[in-house]
Amino acid sequence: MTAATPLRPLALTMGDPCGIGPEIVARAAATGATEGCVVIGDVAVMRRAMRQCGLAMPVAALEALHDAVGCPPACLTVWAPPRLPAGLPELPMGRIDARAGAAAAICIEAAAQAALRGDVAGVVTAPIHKEALSAAGVSFPGHTEMLQSLAAGPDGALPPVRMMLANEELRTVLVTIHVSLREAIERVSFAAVLETIRIAHAAAAGWGQRSPRIAVAGLNPHAGEGGLFGDEEIRIIGPAVQAARAEGIDASGPYAPDTVFMRARHAPPAHPGEFDIVVAMTHDHGLIPVKYLGVEQGVNVTLGLPFVRTSPDHGTAFDIAGRGVADPSSLQAALRMARRLAG
Amino acid sequence: MTAATPLRPLALTMGDPCGIGPEIVARAAATGATEGCVVIGDVAVMRRAMRQCGLAMPVAALEALHDAVGCPPACLTVWAPPRLPAGLPELPMGRIDARAGAAAAICIEAAAQAALRGDVAGVVTAPIHKEALSAAGVSFPGHTEMLQSLAAGPDGALPPVRMMLANEELRTVLVTIHVSLREAIERVSFAAVLETIRIAHAAAAGWGQRSPRIAVAGLNPHAGEGGLFGDEEIRIIGPAVQAARAEGIDASGPYAPDTVFMRARHAPPAHPGEFDIVVAMTHDHGLIPVKYLGVEQGVNVTLGLPFVRTSPDHGTAFDIAGRGVADPSSLQAALRMARRLAG
Repeated sequence: MTAATPLRPLALTMGDPCGIGPEIVARAAATGATEGCVVIGDVAVMRRAMRQCGLAMPVAALEALHDAVGCPPACLTVWAPPRLPAGLPELPMGRIDARAGAAAAICIEAAAQAALRGDVAGVVTAPIHKEALSAAGVSFPGHTEMLQSLAAGPDGALPPVRMMLANEELRTVLVTIHVSLREAIERVSFAAVLETIRIAHAAAAGWGQRSPRIAVAGLNPHAGEGGLFGDEEIRIIGPAVQAARAEGIDASGPYAPDTVFMRARHAPPAHPGEFDIVVAMTHDHGLIPVKYLGVEQGVNVTLGLPFVRTSPDHGTAFDIAGRGVADPSSLQAALRMARRLAG
Repeated sequence: MTAATPLRPLALTMGDPCGIGPEIVARAAATGATEGCVVIGDVAVMRRAMRQCGLAMPVAALEALHDAVGCPPACLTVWAPPRLPAGLPELPMGRIDARAGAAAAICIEAAAQAALRGDVAGVVTAPIHKEALSAAGVSFPGHTEMLQSLAAGPDGALPPVRMMLANEELRTVLVTIHVSLREAIERVSFAAVLETIRIAHAAAAGWGQRSPRIAVAGLNPHAGEGGLFGDEEIRIIGPAVQAARAEGIDASGPYAPDTVFMRARHAPPAHPGEFDIVVAMTHDHGLIPVKYLGVEQGVNVTLGLPFVRTSPDHGTAFDIAGRGVADPSSLQAALRMARRLAG
């Protein structure tokens, strides 16, 4: 009989302390959804969030990350990484603040390092505000790019990563994300499309699909209508699909963007999806359909990192931050997805 | 007591004779949905469509368009415009054919002229195939541009028109349509956005909303995130929204494209929409969410023409043409919408 490996916790970052991140963590904790998680964040901020939500759950401050395993499930365990700015709980809610941005970045960095060391089974991130990050001198436009940089090899080579948005009906993987639409078009290259298809294919094994049906959306209206409305489908996307097929990947397309997501939508029994994953060329082609039925169940998954990483698919919601009313559903879905992928 | 004005018929074009157009007309007719319509098309093609669908409904050939009023409701009335090519019913189904494209164009032209003369109350168009049109030497990429040209003033000035896609939940009006994404970005100008907002505002009176809440979507991810991912929102779209507001229009935005459609989705009581119309910068930003739940109920409405024009929001479906299985739901929705707008 072998000794059971103790379950490693998930790292859950608090997000921007001036946004709804701490509150959705607190509300998720109250439902039991954070059991087996250690929050990487500021202890006083998390205690404030409990009060904002009218919750009496105790918040336990850990001295070291690996103490998490011994914590009782009825309290929220928080580990504060070194160098967190002081005075975070005094920051006004719903405002862009450089200290809040710096704190959010420090927590993400600590969580990623813990995951890279193998101390945690995966990372779930609460929302950050990009302008607060920017005010703190952090030049990354979002979590994905920051985590990619933290996971760079010793030679500085970035692992190729892609953002996936998923809900119960639809999974989309994006070739381009946080750049202008003009720049996105420039970045739709043969290599970028092929790599996205490969990453999507490899990642599907994590949820048990060895040969996922991958639909590749076009860039232009009607997928270019045979070249009448743009030729990226003919020059770039079609050849990338063929190259993926030559590698044994079940990829097809390019399909017209306006109907491929509807075709992939998996809502059985009336509407079984034709595809398991849709590769989309732009941020909004891919995100509009996943979010259309509501962001409550949408989960953001970063594919290609050396660790599991998920997050809710909404932002800091500064307009309602501090009121204790933010909906934790998407964070709960992100926690479920991370557990599933971390195995 | 005044004499009742006899109801004018709707003109319903048969579409590309090699696609599903004639079949969805036949199947809609069998449900009674074409009562008060005159089909502009080829009589033998429509008889073939009835047979393809296993329907025994009689097809009555009209000598003149205005004879339609006297037709019994239990038969499908068809008027064949002059110059239709011969041999149309012998064309193979599901193929691009220049004669089919020419016939489709002739029917659209005849329907538009009837509408401009006031002989019909509006025009409903069955799907055409753009490559067939192109093979016939018709240079328009779609119905919208062709109808706009047919409605040009004596000086050749084109009426500003916009495409609206609508279902029970969502109405989107598009700033750009059948051009490459690269070209679409170039066409997002202050004048184009402001004119779209004005057209959407004016059109809403047709369905009884004098002051519709118009949300304007951005072009870039996160509506440019304050200029980090593109500046069209700051330079172009925001100022156009402000100009519309100065005219008394209830416009707002620009909003992040990935969530504005979800916010506008009108699915009461759980999800009452925040907006009545969303103005989208590109074809696929606007069409992806309308089509996501299925194209069966989606209707394409051309706003800005001097007559009512609607169509189903799907194509010729060459892959199933001739089998009698095409779903007439979207055409039926287009007929209902045209009747509603024609008053």
